Amino acid sequence: MSNTASQHKENLTGLSRETHKYQSFIPSQPIYIIAAASVVGIKEGAGPLGKTFDVIGTDDFFGKENWEEAESALQKQSVDIAIKKAGISENDLHLVFAGDLLAQSIASSFGLANFSAPVVGVYGACSNSGLTLLLGAMALSAGFKEYVGCVTSSHFASAEKEFRFPSSYGSQRPMSAHWTVTGSGAFILGKNEKADSIRLTGFTAGQIVDFGLKENLNMGACMAPAAADTIYRHFKDFESNPTDYDKIITGDLGRVGQKALLDLLSVKGYDISLNHLDCGIEIYDYELQDAHAGGSGCGCSAVVLAGHILDNIRTGVWKKVLFVPTGALLSKISFNEGQSVPGIAHAVMLEK
Amino acid sequence: MSNTASQHKENLTGLSRETHKYQSFIPSQPIYIIAAASVVGIKEGAGPLGKTFDVIGTDDFFGKENWEEAESALQKQSVDIAIKKAGISENDLHLVFAGDLLAQSIASSFGLANFSAPVVGVYGACSNSGLTLLLGAMALSAGFKEYVGCVTSSHFASAEKEFRFPSSYGSQRPMSAHWTVTGSGAFILGKNEKADSIRLTGFTAGQIVDFGLKENLNMGACMAPAAADTIYRHFKDFESNPTDYDKIITGDLGRVGQKALLDLLSVKGYDISLNHLDCGIEIYDYELQDAHAGGSGCGCSAVVLAGHILDNIRTGVWKKVLFVPTGALLSKISFNEGQSVPGIAHAVMLEK
Repeated sequence: MSNTASQHKENLTGLSRETHKYQSFIPSQPIYIIAAASVVGIKEGAGPLGKTFDVIGTDDFFGKENWEEAESALQKQSVDIAIKKAGISENDLHLVFAGDLLAQSIASSFGLANFSAPVVGVYGACSNSGLTLLLGAMALSAGFKEYVGCVTSSHFASAEKEFRFPSSYGSQRPMSAHWTVTGSGAFILGKNEKADSIRLTGFTAGQIVDFGLKENLNMGACMAPAAADTIYRHFKDFESNPTDYDKIITGDLGRVGQKALLDLLSVKGYDISLNHLDCGIEIYDYELQDAHAGGSGCGCSAVVLAGHILDNIRTGVWKKVLFVPTGALLSKISFNEGQSVPGIAHAVMLEK
Repeated sequence: MSNTASQHKENLTGLSRETHKYQSFIPSQPIYIIAAASVVGIKEGAGPLGKTFDVIGTDDFFGKENWEEAESALQKQSVDIAIKKAGISENDLHLVFAGDLLAQSIASSFGLANFSAPVVGVYGACSNSGLTLLLGAMALSAGFKEYVGCVTSSHFASAEKEFRFPSSYGSQRPMSAHWTVTGSGAFILGKNEKADSIRLTGFTAGQIVDFGLKENLNMGACMAPAAADTIYRHFKDFESNPTDYDKIITGDLGRVGQKALLDLLSVKGYDISLNHLDCGIEIYDYELQDAHAGGSGCGCSAVVLAGHILDNIRTGVWKKVLFVPTGALLSKISFNEGQSVPGIAHAVMLEK
């Protein structure tokens, strides 16, 4: 572990001095999610949240010839549905923030090629869904016009090909491994409330946190320190406590990462064990779907937000939610060169 | 060429109807580049702009063991210098926007791991320098605090490995090919003017434009349509003309792309031939440095902006500049799967 990684770990676990720096942003005028849409693959559709998705594909190729194009098709479809639900047209969008996991973000570039709005590509790995919402709210707050779109995607097969081994190689997966979600979630943000709008009331941007862990088949452990850091800073910035939120929902820490997150925050004096959920844990059935530690991928938190989370806020089951998607910032090159797997997490506060 | 690509081409060349949509953003309060820094490799240092860079490396490994880590080191060094020039500390930065060309943006992730500010990863290929400035100004306009950083990088060897063949394979390069710049440019943005600050007075975000071209060794031709589209929209949005700018400076169109850009804009009624520059053409000596069509990479436009362009604005040689970095949105997978190379360009208006 490098000196800075070691220093950072000491800061986070409370063994050393720390300085608090404000990393949050509260929009000066209300920003709303006025529509959301989700498109998923067969496995996700068969899972416990199946009924919350807008479209469940009948073939994971989504009518295309390869996995990358399938992911682009997913992404375009979820944007189109969100636009329709918002009651606007593609031409009403003034900016789209988009991200995925593929090298050079090609799922987004080809999904949105010749789309009639400017595109801002983002890369925060599986934290992309939070990052696009943060930037979307920032754009509207800064004076960008009426509507912006936010979309992220992942695909099991394109991700296996990108980061590990094509699944046809039949390599064994340890129980700490995740299953990349095939899915895309899209959101339309606006300044004016519509029926069923959800308000984005605050954001905490995350630092890149590197504890020096090197396990690419244990992403949960690699990302948990970043999630803990961002949630801790969020509590400090907003002078809030875990009990202020009906749910605190991470993106894809899975079962291993969840335990690490609870431990790290507990050392800092915060107990979120009673109201913590993780999208990666929720999306698949642990007993029946063989997804090991849980789901992952940019699509994981995005489709769970678009369906399950927003549904529960809309119906008043949850009044205030802290949504914290997490990303593992590795590539197959960095992994093969022996680098660690730094993590990042961005927090989004959602209220009815 | 797909239907949408063909439609887009007709729109751009003026053969068909078109609707004008506002894609620009004018900060409601002044946003300044209060400091800039550049770090480059040996070849760039030996070129015509050598004297304008802050640091010229003596070894393109920059003290590291592989090309990816070298690029991360470049990036961190340029950020550190920019922070120092701004007279602030790392802790004063409230957000850093960062991007590079590598898969999963690892040059940025490892360059800024454990950096004491939140990091927003962006991906717009070689348009990243413009994209980070747009987002940085947006963040400050939206109410993010005092200072934000913007940094981008590229490295000849990491890019060859990422997109083409490692140069040790000795593959031949056609004259339309570019030479990826080894370099990183960093900028500190703030709301309060300092001595020598340059004001960011307007932005035009770009669409992803795909004409269906498939030549990965002729990036200039692939990106020119996007540059033409963004510049055209900028003129419309700001009701301006080429003569309103002392210089209109694209990122890395090179010699082939420059000709295509001038032709495309000429068809639309705009002649920018008298005040067009391209960073990729400027950075290497055509006769002596064997860089073929010109330089490219996120670092190309960033280091030319940090040195040559800002210097000329500071000294009053140029009063108003439109800076338009351009990106080619391909990956080796998309190329090998027979996809086209879409382009994107974002425009930034700079004034003393």
